[in-house]
Amino acid sequence: MMSSIPNRRWLISQNPLGRSLKPSDFRLDEQPCEAPDAGDVVVKVSILGIDPSQKGAMENVASYAAATRVGQVMPGKGVGTVIESRSRNFSIGDVVMGAVGWQEYATLKASLLEMVPEGVPHSYSLSVLGSTGLTAYFGLFDIGRPVPGDVLVVSGAGGAVGSIVGQLGRLAGCHTIGIAGSASKCEALLDRFGFNAAINYKEDNVRRVLRELAPEGIDIYFDNVGGSLLDDCLSRLAFGARIVVCGGISRYNADPRDKSQLPPGPQNYFSVVHTKSRVEGFLLPNYESHFTQAKSRLKAWVERGALVQQEDVLEGIERAPEALIRLFEGSNQGKQLVLLDRVNS
Amino acid sequence: MMSSIPNRRWLISQNPLGRSLKPSDFRLDEQPCEAPDAGDVVVKVSILGIDPSQKGAMENVASYAAATRVGQVMPGKGVGTVIESRSRNFSIGDVVMGAVGWQEYATLKASLLEMVPEGVPHSYSLSVLGSTGLTAYFGLFDIGRPVPGDVLVVSGAGGAVGSIVGQLGRLAGCHTIGIAGSASKCEALLDRFGFNAAINYKEDNVRRVLRELAPEGIDIYFDNVGGSLLDDCLSRLAFGARIVVCGGISRYNADPRDKSQLPPGPQNYFSVVHTKSRVEGFLLPNYESHFTQAKSRLKAWVERGALVQQEDVLEGIERAPEALIRLFEGSNQGKQLVLLDRVNS
Repeated sequence: MMSSIPNRRWLISQNPLGRSLKPSDFRLDEQPCEAPDAGDVVVKVSILGIDPSQKGAMENVASYAAATRVGQVMPGKGVGTVIESRSRNFSIGDVVMGAVGWQEYATLKASLLEMVPEGVPHSYSLSVLGSTGLTAYFGLFDIGRPVPGDVLVVSGAGGAVGSIVGQLGRLAGCHTIGIAGSASKCEALLDRFGFNAAINYKEDNVRRVLRELAPEGIDIYFDNVGGSLLDDCLSRLAFGARIVVCGGISRYNADPRDKSQLPPGPQNYFSVVHTKSRVEGFLLPNYESHFTQAKSRLKAWVERGALVQQEDVLEGIERAPEALIRLFEGSNQGKQLVLLDRVNS
Repeated sequence: MMSSIPNRRWLISQNPLGRSLKPSDFRLDEQPCEAPDAGDVVVKVSILGIDPSQKGAMENVASYAAATRVGQVMPGKGVGTVIESRSRNFSIGDVVMGAVGWQEYATLKASLLEMVPEGVPHSYSLSVLGSTGLTAYFGLFDIGRPVPGDVLVVSGAGGAVGSIVGQLGRLAGCHTIGIAGSASKCEALLDRFGFNAAINYKEDNVRRVLRELAPEGIDIYFDNVGGSLLDDCLSRLAFGARIVVCGGISRYNADPRDKSQLPPGPQNYFSVVHTKSRVEGFLLPNYESHFTQAKSRLKAWVERGALVQQEDVLEGIERAPEALIRLFEGSNQGKQLVLLDRVNS
């Protein structure tokens, strides 16, 4: 039956390692939908979640991501509806989230899917209740370890992770300062996400403004960016500060194997000595055993309005490459999604 | 009485900020020994302990060190014998350690002095049982947190702190790899300090040798150097690695206020994300409440021969500037001392 349904899908056509993404790195293709084997389900995809780490997955250099090759379907998470099931775990009509890839119909093992949470928009399982929210949660709470009164600075604060970090920091009693790259993003930081202050790094003198906004220094810097903002914050650390290395979007176009391509490192790293500070990284899979607890807390905050979610939606599978590319241009505000099917989203 | 004793002393004659030290940064002067006020003692200095942080003290930019000015006696720790006391805490003949400065006779408050430990050479209170040993102890045990089986890499391993770190790491069950800058230092690492392996960074391809010596990665990197060795080690981190930022001798000739002078930062800092690693600094005064416990453990290890100490001794107060300058040339092996008075040392 499934073989009669045409399935449009984006293939990886080139490896973008060491440069910016471009539209020709992807190729739109159409094939009949694959028939499910025993244990598989077929999902009609309604929403794709877009994430900077997807460029890394295409590059196939990071040991922690599954290997990819040119010609395969572009991997990525999405939400959709089960339209055929050969698994006892899912029934037709179930709305699920998982590694569906950039395509209209995904035939995949049931173990790669989970039910979306009830009572919230389906898209939330790709954002605040999915890896985005969990990244903010573990990065801030386990690495940043906020205590009330801490000054928390967040870069990429208008992005999917950063906007949640600011709100979680407020819940933890921090004074929150967001850094973003446009006046409209800074407005959203203050009005929508409740940051105490916002810095527009394209307009403001970041070091001077940080000196004014955090005269006693920064206790937690949640870094989604790297580059000169990291150095700016290292120059303003409070005693015992924590630098959460979450993202480095300023580095993602370099080939990590080629030293000459890598952007400069933080010249001010030695300030960790004088301030007894800690710089620490993490990856989400490290926390898998705590996911259930974290999701339940995030959901409770969403339900009582303490945690709001901003989504930036492009419509049509045709726009998936554009959606990923704009993350690297800083054009998105909040979680970048691609809507394939309005009815089932 | 004291006013009749001539006191030779080194004064700071220039601030060396932003450049290498040179002999003309110091001026040898002679003044009558100062008479003690109530609460003071007069110490005939026998040994000076020399330390890279003394350049920082002359530069007067680090907020954590006492302010200095051109024309004052060069500050520094030393050991000596009390020859006059107006304090009930010390008697004539007591051998003491404290902030005597670079001079033959120091008249100072009794509160700046402590008795040297019994049963070990007096100089040990300036090295393995003083700030050198304590720096190694807290940096390794509190920041590095070794567990048996860890691979511990130490840079500046032939230096005062590094040679102790390697031995403490062995006591903690680590596999220890020392990095030093000459064949004779590397020989000492293996033969004297019991490192499992040594790398001569001036001769060896550090990354390749680290790949061979630590095929499963580095668990703890104790950094006394900064610069390219830090990047080399960041490229070889094991999961959950700890980078102890203790020293950065490659940076100490730069003016930290002038961004253009600072050497490049670690380009590979982002590897902390993929390995969930931690980079952390510290300063010794943070641990003051634990000093007694740490000194007692260090002394017990010294007494049972589990911790050996190497000293690099120059004779004569005239050579104090040379002794400090050679630390920045990597010429010392072990703790750099200046012997003023063989009889009382």
